[in-house]
Amino acid sequence: MAVRTIEWIDNKIVLLDQTLLPTEEKYLIIDSIDVLAEAIKSLRVRGAPAIGVAAAMGVALAGKLFHGQSREAFNEDVLKAIDLLQKTRPTAVNLFWALDRMQNILKAHSSNSIADIQKILIDEAMKIFEEDRQICRLMGKNGADLLDHSVTILTHCNAGALATADYGTALAVVYAAHEQGKKVKVFSDETRPLLQGARLTAWELQKSNIDVTVICDNMAASVMKSGLIDCVIVGADRIAANGDVANKIGTYGLAILAQAHKIPFYVAAPLSTIDMSISHGDQIPIEMRASQEITHGFGKQTVPDGVTVYNPAFDVTPNTLITAIVTEAGVVRTPFQKVFQEIMPSS
Amino acid sequence: MAVRTIEWIDNKIVLLDQTLLPTEEKYLIIDSIDVLAEAIKSLRVRGAPAIGVAAAMGVALAGKLFHGQSREAFNEDVLKAIDLLQKTRPTAVNLFWALDRMQNILKAHSSNSIADIQKILIDEAMKIFEEDRQICRLMGKNGADLLDHSVTILTHCNAGALATADYGTALAVVYAAHEQGKKVKVFSDETRPLLQGARLTAWELQKSNIDVTVICDNMAASVMKSGLIDCVIVGADRIAANGDVANKIGTYGLAILAQAHKIPFYVAAPLSTIDMSISHGDQIPIEMRASQEITHGFGKQTVPDGVTVYNPAFDVTPNTLITAIVTEAGVVRTPFQKVFQEIMPSS
Repeated sequence: MAVRTIEWIDNKIVLLDQTLLPTEEKYLIIDSIDVLAEAIKSLRVRGAPAIGVAAAMGVALAGKLFHGQSREAFNEDVLKAIDLLQKTRPTAVNLFWALDRMQNILKAHSSNSIADIQKILIDEAMKIFEEDRQICRLMGKNGADLLDHSVTILTHCNAGALATADYGTALAVVYAAHEQGKKVKVFSDETRPLLQGARLTAWELQKSNIDVTVICDNMAASVMKSGLIDCVIVGADRIAANGDVANKIGTYGLAILAQAHKIPFYVAAPLSTIDMSISHGDQIPIEMRASQEITHGFGKQTVPDGVTVYNPAFDVTPNTLITAIVTEAGVVRTPFQKVFQEIMPSS
Repeated sequence: MAVRTIEWIDNKIVLLDQTLLPTEEKYLIIDSIDVLAEAIKSLRVRGAPAIGVAAAMGVALAGKLFHGQSREAFNEDVLKAIDLLQKTRPTAVNLFWALDRMQNILKAHSSNSIADIQKILIDEAMKIFEEDRQICRLMGKNGADLLDHSVTILTHCNAGALATADYGTALAVVYAAHEQGKKVKVFSDETRPLLQGARLTAWELQKSNIDVTVICDNMAASVMKSGLIDCVIVGADRIAANGDVANKIGTYGLAILAQAHKIPFYVAAPLSTIDMSISHGDQIPIEMRASQEITHGFGKQTVPDGVTVYNPAFDVTPNTLITAIVTEAGVVRTPFQKVFQEIMPSS
């Protein structure tokens, strides 16, 4: 992979600032929880799995930044960091999953010394990071097996290397198929308002020499009708126990269009994206973001002052529109809930 | 109406430069066919009926600009202008319809003096302009009768005052319902890549104090699912004899989404938009526009250099997805072809 999205170097978090892509490749060296929280909120790092990794590293960082003597004060500092990071973004469940996991480690080692627990937290964050890398590879392989030798895939937003610690969820399938020697072509929705498809997906696929064509979101139906698309593959920010999928705004519409054109609609996501505590997609909290993302998207005003703007960051695709969900544990088809119950690790 | 899109003043064409909206309201005074052709190509004036009016005025202008003595040379100049204007944009049929009409007038008065034919061409252009105004009013009334007292409409692109000589096609229905005292709320797709929905529709509805909310194109499905939308109304650039509709890219997808949510999908267009010489929508030529509209849309580069971009300006919505077509002659429902044959003026 040509892309390093997030790393832990010298007890600091190193992030590629994704808001500057595709024209500038700048890495941020983060050694403060406030700066990390801002980076997550502002989508300098984004994508459900990458947010999870960033949050875990944030907890490790909070531990490392502690310079007192009392273990109680240490716990307090780390819990404060967890609380701050929890409030950054509401939809992607991997954030809460990673923070919960780090908090459980903190509790499970409550009698360890500060030096010990500092190291244990870093080790756990690195474990989450490494697991995410392996999970990407497994998802890629499982998904690639679904594809014909020559295939054109439509994707939305960025569910690639820039959204994970390795080579993605939806794009893991693309990369794996490419590595297997399959002839893969990708259409990437630009994905308004923040254009992750145009800025990020096109950027990383181009770096990997994969044939990519950018379209505006509203062109997907036309491209499907032309017979150009063999399947749709997207990532997920949270999956309910019944298989309903919250993902980047526009995903739900794409799923309807895919069904209307009899095109398979796949979701690729790690098990950590599945939230068994939520029975139905309607219960997933949907983040509303600032109007300015739409009205002043890229340095130029495009909506008159005073006009109302509606800017949900995600939508929910009902399980009935989903052909299959590709996970590291295999490809899940309906009935999703039953299969999830079998394959989800018990917590 | 607070908006004057196109006018004929002192033998010149006065156009509101729509590429500068919503932040700048600048009128262009056009006294050259080349400048007019550029204005049409660059979408300084756009919208099928407005393009028709602009082209008709262009022919009148070509006549007025002639300073020779020979009627033959006059005809040559005017026909050259017609030829140039014909090549500006391929999809909207109103352009060809208006140019044909002007050319027929030119032929029908082949023995008139130059001074006479100059005036006749101006009169015909003004007649097309005035007819368009009346047609807008009739479409508005016919469409408004379809709406409940309190209604929320989703529209795409701009089919309003800025697309016609009066108050629009799709938005004529909105304005007429508003004038009738109905409680009308509009959701406007921003309409990538050129953002006519965000820049133009929002601008003119706000000027008329109509409640408007801008969304990104990919949010339409989510808004429909929320139950917020009572119907979709869009304009058209060309309608085939069977009722298939070419309109701004994204319209076809919206029509699928409307059907999936059981929401009526209306098209509002004058009879001049119906092309009885084309039996099926697949025969309508679709304009491909420059990649830069997508890659550098907001004054900032949003797609990496060297990435392929696909940028069709229009798509075709099959008649099966269309609840009704609102025209000045009434509301047409399936079988469209049969009704069109009855109501179309014989040429």
